Amino acid sequence: AATADSGIPAAGAEVAFQFLHSELVSFLLREQLQGGGGGPATVQQCRAQLSKLETMGFQVGQAYVEKMTKDLPRFRDDLEIVKFLCKDFWASLFKKQVDNLKTNHQGVYVIIDEKFSLLVPMARGKQYLDRCHLYTAFPCGLIRGALTNLGLRAIVTAEVEELPRVKFQIQLVQHST
Amino acid sequence: AATADSGIPAAGAEVAFQFLHSELVSFLLREQLQGGGGGPATVQQCRAQLSKLETMGFQVGQAYVEKMTKDLPRFRDDLEIVKFLCKDFWASLFKKQVDNLKTNHQGVYVIIDEKFSLLVPMARGKQYLDRCHLYTAFPCGLIRGALTNLGLRAIVTAEVEELPRVKFQIQLVQHST
Repeated sequence: AATADSGIPAAGAEVAFQFLHSELVSFLLREQLQGGGGGPATVQQCRAQLSKLETMGFQVGQAYVEKMTKDLPRFRDDLEIVKFLCKDFWASLFKKQVDNLKTNHQGVYVIIDEKFSLLVPMARGKQYLDRCHLYTAFPCGLIRGALTNLGLRAIVTAEVEELPRVKFQIQLVQHST
Repeated sequence: AATADSGIPAAGAEVAFQFLHSELVSFLLREQLQGGGGGPATVQQCRAQLSKLETMGFQVGQAYVEKMTKDLPRFRDDLEIVKFLCKDFWASLFKKQVDNLKTNHQGVYVIIDEKFSLLVPMARGKQYLDRCHLYTAFPCGLIRGALTNLGLRAIVTAEVEELPRVKFQIQLVQHST
């Protein structure tokens, strides 16, 4: 199984993954500003960009978890899947596990990461990124894609009060247990 | 220094980096097809998409190499920089070193990677990807960005005869030696 801190060099591929995500958000933001004539983005424009990012996250999450789990035994229940997400999946992509996981045992899971790696590069230029929550759309898609590949349909949302702390809420649409 | 095979789990972040790159190419390809009404892309459209990918690669390459090398001693000459690129940079991003490096000792370097990791996911859907060489624009930018950060201006081009084998040619614009 994947573990954090397993001899990965200081600037490993997870850093490149961070930078590529950051660049992707900047790119979509630039596109939006060009398209909108420099004025504030409309709700429709925001939604379109969010949706593009979420979709890309979804595809990457699906493909990645497929590769990660292909030799693992089947998970027993929803909780085991979410724990896998919080530990192995998180560690292999973000080099740390989540800081907190809560559940109401009725299909809602709340994940807190105090220093979410995909938001670290954003913390610098945050004046440009506040609009539209563009920086959480990709990770929400990533989580949703991972869960989908493991058989769980979910709605995933994120709240950022202060970068790089993030709270993800997972609402399962179908329970497997 | 970064090394390959340093206990990174089978599906590590470099795989997520691959998938994200692959998704980015697909995304730009979809955008192009939508914009072009489904017909063959015009040269201008191809150039625009290539340029977007190259720019993103450039930014990621710069930021990544900056982070990788910040605690390393200065390189002695161009060759040492290119060797660093072929070994440490390659290993940390692509989990292997390049297979061959040639130079004419006059500022031209040819790098061959027999199984270039960013092209591995492409090898599946290659019928859609042949056009425009969209799949090598990002890595060319990545290399150019890395070199620029290390003080070398270069023109980087790529040739793919058969996926996932790729030949990169680096033509230095300014010699430091």
